Amino acid sequence: MTIRVAVDAMGSDRGPEDIVAGAVEAATDQLQPVIVGPSTLDTQGLELIEAPDVIEMDEKPTEAVRAKERSSLVIACRAVGDGRANAVVSPGNTGAMLAASLLHIRRVKGVLRPAIAVVIPARDGPNVLIDAGANADARPEHLAQFAEMGTILSREVLGVASPRVRLLSIGEEAEKGNQLALDAHALLAQRDGFEGNTEGRNLLTGGGEVVVTDGFTGNVALKLLEGTIRAILDGLRTEITATTRGKLGGLLIRPAARRLRTRLDPDTYGGAYLLGLRGLAVIAHGNSSSRAIANAIRLAARGVEHDVVGRLAQRLQEEVLESARSTPTTPE
Amino acid sequence: MTIRVAVDAMGSDRGPEDIVAGAVEAATDQLQPVIVGPSTLDTQGLELIEAPDVIEMDEKPTEAVRAKERSSLVIACRAVGDGRANAVVSPGNTGAMLAASLLHIRRVKGVLRPAIAVVIPARDGPNVLIDAGANADARPEHLAQFAEMGTILSREVLGVASPRVRLLSIGEEAEKGNQLALDAHALLAQRDGFEGNTEGRNLLTGGGEVVVTDGFTGNVALKLLEGTIRAILDGLRTEITATTRGKLGGLLIRPAARRLRTRLDPDTYGGAYLLGLRGLAVIAHGNSSSRAIANAIRLAARGVEHDVVGRLAQRLQEEVLESARSTPTTPE
Repeated sequence: MTIRVAVDAMGSDRGPEDIVAGAVEAATDQLQPVIVGPSTLDTQGLELIEAPDVIEMDEKPTEAVRAKERSSLVIACRAVGDGRANAVVSPGNTGAMLAASLLHIRRVKGVLRPAIAVVIPARDGPNVLIDAGANADARPEHLAQFAEMGTILSREVLGVASPRVRLLSIGEEAEKGNQLALDAHALLAQRDGFEGNTEGRNLLTGGGEVVVTDGFTGNVALKLLEGTIRAILDGLRTEITATTRGKLGGLLIRPAARRLRTRLDPDTYGGAYLLGLRGLAVIAHGNSSSRAIANAIRLAARGVEHDVVGRLAQRLQEEVLESARSTPTTPE
Repeated sequence: MTIRVAVDAMGSDRGPEDIVAGAVEAATDQLQPVIVGPSTLDTQGLELIEAPDVIEMDEKPTEAVRAKERSSLVIACRAVGDGRANAVVSPGNTGAMLAASLLHIRRVKGVLRPAIAVVIPARDGPNVLIDAGANADARPEHLAQFAEMGTILSREVLGVASPRVRLLSIGEEAEKGNQLALDAHALLAQRDGFEGNTEGRNLLTGGGEVVVTDGFTGNVALKLLEGTIRAILDGLRTEITATTRGKLGGLLIRPAARRLRTRLDPDTYGGAYLLGLRGLAVIAHGNSSSRAIANAIRLAARGVEHDVVGRLAQRLQEEVLESARSTPTTPE
């Protein structure tokens, strides 16, 4: 089977040429990127689905998606809804991607809220952070579902045998947190694989974890993580190049620094999954390099291969059955 | 004038000896640390206020403060309330410190909620993050007051001429955020010096900012920041020492790495201010080194010298007058 990934070529901070280059890089016999963009675009031989319009980064998501039905972002999502593609990748407006996906790919039955899942390259293996920004305000039952979705992603795509679920909070004790965290903790505690709260300090060390949080906290955390990594590596470079001795040392440690940078580079995964939909959607960084786009397309294809959507639907159905069984029946 | 700082010698993750050593290091003619701990403790010649009991890290704050009136933490706070000390430093249970301060130092008139303010050593100067953990659930009007408190700290203690207030959120646009951030943005927008939202990625770069958030988000962010700094520096060391070439380079860049580490080290400030009280309180890290304790004591003394408490009270009074003036009077 050939996996077809619709790639939104427009609306990124860089030009469409980088997106096309990334798509060409990712293309294989089994993985066929389909470019969505204007007819004038040089697709380097890849199939094109025409979309004359563009949703910009600063547009209001819901309005833009309604007003611009012929934008590359909307048409790319619709390609998944129509079955013309198995997955979609977009480096554009995250809010618009969420709105267009809900409208054209639609939720898996039983999913309360789709969520953004990001792979965090921690020291001891990949962690999943969910929700990294789809739901700024969330309820405890949403967080409980995020745990299910993140676990499926970790197991099926990242190959973690028994993902450990943890709730991001401000202390490891169950009674530490804001009201949302306290209520979510109580719900998660009824679940296998839940290992209690975790703190931000562990996000980059422990591996194989599914770290659950609301989209506000998760997005603040993700951006803080990315910014801190960049600030420290840049700060180190500044200090090193300040002296001749440092410069010489810098040359010698360059391969070591590059290994670390490659591991921590967001481009290594290229994007974040939008989970809970009837098709796979990957949101790439707005300023993605062609390498990042290629990796985002591969990430999308891996999700299709491992049937993340089907397994999620199955898991939610099992939950409904389980809760039906555990509900005491009223005696006649 | 001699500034007297009550130092809670008990309840830290390390022993009381490190705390006493830090107090001895900080002592000068103008700064007199007063040790609060058991009578058996060797205070190295410093004055002792006797406190036979200890509140442990894992005790429930409010209950512990009520049950252990003769604990070092409670007696150290009471020393400020009684006027026997100008400030208090404790490396103990943060929640207990908050509860004991509210009870024995009490709030400045008009302060809705005391908040924890941490100095973040950013590239272009010190930022203040407030609230870093006192109020897991906060309301918009609390955040507006945190902005006032953080501004006074930044101006008076850190010497920033015109601190810029920013709201921690998930996008720079006013309409990005959870409900709390949206409502807080609307309140803050009425205030001079407010420059809109900021994202986590800027916390370590821009300087002279007062970054306002609720205590849950702020605490997650602070711990993530500290953990990421440690994880990256440790990861770099691991990569460097993996090869002979790297080891040699590592020796050469050691002074550069040390400069960066010193700037980013939480011990450089030693603690966080608990603002909004009628006396100065500084919360030190639970595993503070003697150097960190010495710096926390100096931080407390600097707050007393610059009359942070008096200026805060004055500013809140001005606010009340301003809002009285701007309220339209009903015509008779």
